[in-house]
Amino acid sequence: MAIEAARFSPSLAAAAFLARRPPPALFPFSLRRRIPLLHVLAGSSGGDGRVVALSSSELRKRRGLSSSSGAADPASDGDEKLRSLRRLFARPDVAIDAYIVPSQDAHQSEFIAECFMRRAYLTGFTGSAGTAVVTKDKAALWTDGRYFLQAEKELTHEWTLMRSGNHGVPTTSEWLNDVLPSGCRVGIDPFLFSFDAAEELKDSISNKNHELVLVRGMNLVDEIWGDARPEPPKEPTRVHDIKYAGIDVPSKLSFIRSHLTENGCDAVVISMLDEVAWLLNMRGSDVPHSPVFYSYLIVEVSTATLFVDSNKVSEDVLEHLEKAGVKLKPYEAIVSEVERLAEKGAKLWLDSSSVNAAIITAFKSSCDKHMKKKGKAGEKVEKEAYSDEPTGVENGALNAVYNVSPVTLAKSVKNEAEIEGMKNSHLRDAAALAEFWCWLEDEVCKSVPLTEVQVAEKLLEFRKKQDGFIETSFDTISGYGANGAVIHYRPTPEDCSSVGSDNLFLLDSGAQYIDGTTDITRTVHFGEPSPRQKECFTRVLQGHIALDQAVFPERTPGFVLDVLARSSLWKIGLDYRHGTGHGVGAALNVHEGPQSISYRYGNLTALQKGMIVSNEPGYYEDNSFGIRIENLLLIKELNLANSFGGISYLGFERLTFVPIQINWVNDYHEEVWDKVSPLLSGDTRDWLWKNTRPILDVTHRYSHAQDIA
Amino acid sequence: MAIEAARFSPSLAAAAFLARRPPPALFPFSLRRRIPLLHVLAGSSGGDGRVVALSSSELRKRRGLSSSSGAADPASDGDEKLRSLRRLFARPDVAIDAYIVPSQDAHQSEFIAECFMRRAYLTGFTGSAGTAVVTKDKAALWTDGRYFLQAEKELTHEWTLMRSGNHGVPTTSEWLNDVLPSGCRVGIDPFLFSFDAAEELKDSISNKNHELVLVRGMNLVDEIWGDARPEPPKEPTRVHDIKYAGIDVPSKLSFIRSHLTENGCDAVVISMLDEVAWLLNMRGSDVPHSPVFYSYLIVEVSTATLFVDSNKVSEDVLEHLEKAGVKLKPYEAIVSEVERLAEKGAKLWLDSSSVNAAIITAFKSSCDKHMKKKGKAGEKVEKEAYSDEPTGVENGALNAVYNVSPVTLAKSVKNEAEIEGMKNSHLRDAAALAEFWCWLEDEVCKSVPLTEVQVAEKLLEFRKKQDGFIETSFDTISGYGANGAVIHYRPTPEDCSSVGSDNLFLLDSGAQYIDGTTDITRTVHFGEPSPRQKECFTRVLQGHIALDQAVFPERTPGFVLDVLARSSLWKIGLDYRHGTGHGVGAALNVHEGPQSISYRYGNLTALQKGMIVSNEPGYYEDNSFGIRIENLLLIKELNLANSFGGISYLGFERLTFVPIQINWVNDYHEEVWDKVSPLLSGDTRDWLWKNTRPILDVTHRYSHAQDIA
Repeated sequence: MAIEAARFSPSLAAAAFLARRPPPALFPFSLRRRIPLLHVLAGSSGGDGRVVALSSSELRKRRGLSSSSGAADPASDGDEKLRSLRRLFARPDVAIDAYIVPSQDAHQSEFIAECFMRRAYLTGFTGSAGTAVVTKDKAALWTDGRYFLQAEKELTHEWTLMRSGNHGVPTTSEWLNDVLPSGCRVGIDPFLFSFDAAEELKDSISNKNHELVLVRGMNLVDEIWGDARPEPPKEPTRVHDIKYAGIDVPSKLSFIRSHLTENGCDAVVISMLDEVAWLLNMRGSDVPHSPVFYSYLIVEVSTATLFVDSNKVSEDVLEHLEKAGVKLKPYEAIVSEVERLAEKGAKLWLDSSSVNAAIITAFKSSCDKHMKKKGKAGEKVEKEAYSDEPTGVENGALNAVYNVSPVTLAKSVKNEAEIEGMKNSHLRDAAALAEFWCWLEDEVCKSVPLTEVQVAEKLLEFRKKQDGFIETSFDTISGYGANGAVIHYRPTPEDCSSVGSDNLFLLDSGAQYIDGTTDITRTVHFGEPSPRQKECFTRVLQGHIALDQAVFPERTPGFVLDVLARSSLWKIGLDYRHGTGHGVGAALNVHEGPQSISYRYGNLTALQKGMIVSNEPGYYEDNSFGIRIENLLLIKELNLANSFGGISYLGFERLTFVPIQINWVNDYHEEVWDKVSPLLSGDTRDWLWKNTRPILDVTHRYSHAQDIA
Repeated sequence: MAIEAARFSPSLAAAAFLARRPPPALFPFSLRRRIPLLHVLAGSSGGDGRVVALSSSELRKRRGLSSSSGAADPASDGDEKLRSLRRLFARPDVAIDAYIVPSQDAHQSEFIAECFMRRAYLTGFTGSAGTAVVTKDKAALWTDGRYFLQAEKELTHEWTLMRSGNHGVPTTSEWLNDVLPSGCRVGIDPFLFSFDAAEELKDSISNKNHELVLVRGMNLVDEIWGDARPEPPKEPTRVHDIKYAGIDVPSKLSFIRSHLTENGCDAVVISMLDEVAWLLNMRGSDVPHSPVFYSYLIVEVSTATLFVDSNKVSEDVLEHLEKAGVKLKPYEAIVSEVERLAEKGAKLWLDSSSVNAAIITAFKSSCDKHMKKKGKAGEKVEKEAYSDEPTGVENGALNAVYNVSPVTLAKSVKNEAEIEGMKNSHLRDAAALAEFWCWLEDEVCKSVPLTEVQVAEKLLEFRKKQDGFIETSFDTISGYGANGAVIHYRPTPEDCSSVGSDNLFLLDSGAQYIDGTTDITRTVHFGEPSPRQKECFTRVLQGHIALDQAVFPERTPGFVLDVLARSSLWKIGLDYRHGTGHGVGAALNVHEGPQSISYRYGNLTALQKGMIVSNEPGYYEDNSFGIRIENLLLIKELNLANSFGGISYLGFERLTFVPIQINWVNDYHEEVWDKVSPLLSGDTRDWLWKNTRPILDVTHRYSHAQDIA
């Protein structure tokens, strides 16, 4: 028991389970913005007439997933769903004692299409993060602190809410080991777990001799969802223009193929949707906020195959693909194709942290069959039986190399066209934000009552007017006063505050443009901030500036710089419970790896020239106010007078150009002078005078706010 | 072959091999100061009449180890030693094809007694770090960049010098796998390798089917050394007064015993000499620079046994030990005692990174014998055979817990009396340094020619006048000009520079006092430093100040703060190739773990209240000058206005009080003003004026130097 407790600390295991990919160590922000279910976006069509994925509020309205409108009502059909699900347990082709329903789609996506929101359908709980586990007589839902209140409201009495991270709350595996008699069969849909996650689960439930059953051929929730289940998205794809993509598809494929050859591989399976989109210079709109489309890609040494619903592929996209030698196959054909490769004896490159268990286990068992046929089975199979590593991955054994996708790093290092597009889209985004802030200050000064949701909608209006605008890059976090202290806050029209001049207003938003992706946070006060707020804001800003100004040698992992953003806060005993920076895609996902700037030390990926990271320190005072200041930064090589060690030194170039409400610092310094100077004399008083002078050239940026302050 | 190359990168493996304990990841400085062979200390008796270990120059003179006086002379008996050693290979009770002779003693000590300097005796190479490997027809010596020139001079033509860290230079294991035919027997003295190191060696030579042979009962170098081998040290031990130790021995033993009970152990073997000294409130002088004595300690739940030469234990020490219930046994009885414990079925706590292979393998084989006798052998032995982990440590299997010594962390967190002693000894040390710097400035101003060695000797004179002075805590690094750029520089009377006023002078020194241990570096210029030197000094000082001023939450590992000391240098593309801080013992070893402040990310030990660390950023310009500014800091809990997360916030209190030559910064700023202000006007010119004013209250510290500058 001691060893089990150590291995499965509830907080760690739960976090890992809830946010399988990207892992929490790399993407501290991914949990925050895995919020595909709730609104803000009002329209269903982009400014340029392009079809846009529905906003989550729209989705909720249309599908009755809203907490106020149906499915989650205790009087609804919750019981019937569980009954139907349990009836399926007994079917001879299923034969399981429990079934796990995670939030994921088959691609570890941050934002997912409605038809894949099985956990929400089954449980009635509409939060973005959560895992449901159903046994023959129990049903439990795990979610984290952001969603405790919402889950309490939305779950029926048949469901037990498991508050992940709270003391003594078991992980899903621990719970299964606890409630099931020894030797049960625990079912999952292998498409919804990465291979690594499935192996970890298998390993942990084996402590009670449970067997992990990969239920193939059907998702049990889909079975009970039946005709009411939404259709998979059918939004058309488009070519991402070479003037934005920078590198043509044949060159990208050739780069991947050189990696395959170097590693002695015949093919690689790409399953992350942004990786497919990047590699093929294509974009889609199957999910909200991310310009991606449901698909897999297999790149072989001489061919490449895109697995996608052919209805999504127009003539010009088809031509674009044909030029690059990319064939089409149906989305569903991925598994049989992988089996065909196994039969051919092909050696595959597989990223087992992202490629799902359905694909990898199909490949492995097909390899085994093939080897037996060839009479070589004895040796190889025996080897497999002995190499029982924790992850279950046999490096070297079988015909596969298990390694991070060759696209991940290539995509994170932006080329010149991508950088150009990011810069241009940030300038247009900045123009929209300038219009917005100018408007908002006026409104607040005129005491026009505006809710957090209305403010976010107005911001969207301004953005829509910009060229190339497509949609928001995540649900806008619009938090006034105490709401700003909720790091993952999402206002709803039914339950949100008005934005006034008595407290801080935190606005974290971003957009997808045809040429780039933005993500920016500003925190402002339209009245007189308290001395406490001034001090905290100043220190968050000091941290922001310290990171912005950092210079560092090549090969420095992001976590080394994290302390620069925190040390001003630490000096007065304050801190914030999220990372400082995440990667951002170029006209792609607003969160991407592999780099990060975080207080977690696990991510050793070096920050590299051409990568983009956010710089977003914050401070949150519970039930009071929240502060975050976020810019996006491009990593560039510096031309310094020295280069000790003969290596490159790197620094940051700002992509974001929106004023920061700096007059606070001036106000604060004025207050410091007023309060402290009477106690001083001579040199020290001179020093204080010098160090509390206003920063003149930025004082007048927020003119209205300044008038009030 | 690919996997081997990856596993044994020459630089990593060589560093690990040369500096087995403390490992380089934890103690970047340990390599620098593993310099027990060379002088500075002149006398053989401390100021208070206590017998003091001989300085290394004395040792060299007396034993003919000096490069200028005998053993290493190419015309000497080098050949005969190798011949004698190889004759032993053939003895039936030895029967080996190669023998490895490391630098270590049996306790992984930083400073070792002369009788254990087997590698120096065998090879003639007197540097502190090196490993000799002898086969039937080859002899090779591995050392690192500090010692290439010295080794070239000192080795006879029969030896091949292996320049560790240079491109393409194999590790000892790689070399053995290369030069020996498959299936050879490689011998070591198991006392001179930690168990982990021996297992790693065993594992790496098994690639060529070589067998690691633990040659027990004799050290082959001692056999050929014969009567000429110095006697083991017999210096008397003494009681470390409770007014300095703070906690009595029964309390310390009881603390260790509570750890044993918690971990289900019956006994722990302590083999690090500073851990024995700390736990028993005893001190000795068996080795230079560290107040320790050769011994082992076994703490059982109701008894404790010190394994030491009883001649070293006076009546009052004996009484002190008896009061604490500590029995004496001969030093050599350690192995038989461990075997006796195995026979009793006792479960041992063993720190396999420090306890040597002789002890642990004796315990393990005795356990096996015992289990076989009891009829339980089948199951246990089989289990051992299957659990073939890389380290060879069977956690849980057999009767042992393999974990870091329970003394390590306890010793690093100082109690109030230890802190008091450290503070007091630092004040007396500061007085000696003030006298010294005052004297040196005068001498240099008067243009009296003084060598680096003479300067260090004079410093020792001033220190000797201080109450409670015992000896230096390491060989003084006294480096003028280009010598200061050699991080591990050791001047010798035969070959050292004069200290003048044309370049920087770096002085890194420390002392052992009855109540504490010091370690301080200052860098000064007695003339006019160049603009380059001023800029580099200023940035090193900025880094020193940034770390000094850091505030950080509890549980922060030291590496998180390392960037604070470097970022000023990074901004102009400079850096330094050593860690920023190491732990320091209280009237004990000048380097101790487990904490460190380093750019290496491997040491996750949190910095804790009561720990002491050095703060020593530097910059070294090859063939030109070196800068290092070092204070010792005590980690303390801060009483801040906030404590976000309900945790403690920590900071530093300075122990070292010796002026830093700050007028440089003022000079530099004056120069900045003179050069840049003509190019500026208005606000920017005002800003530059404000930011280049002299720091008035420290300008006059080094009055002479200032007059010159």
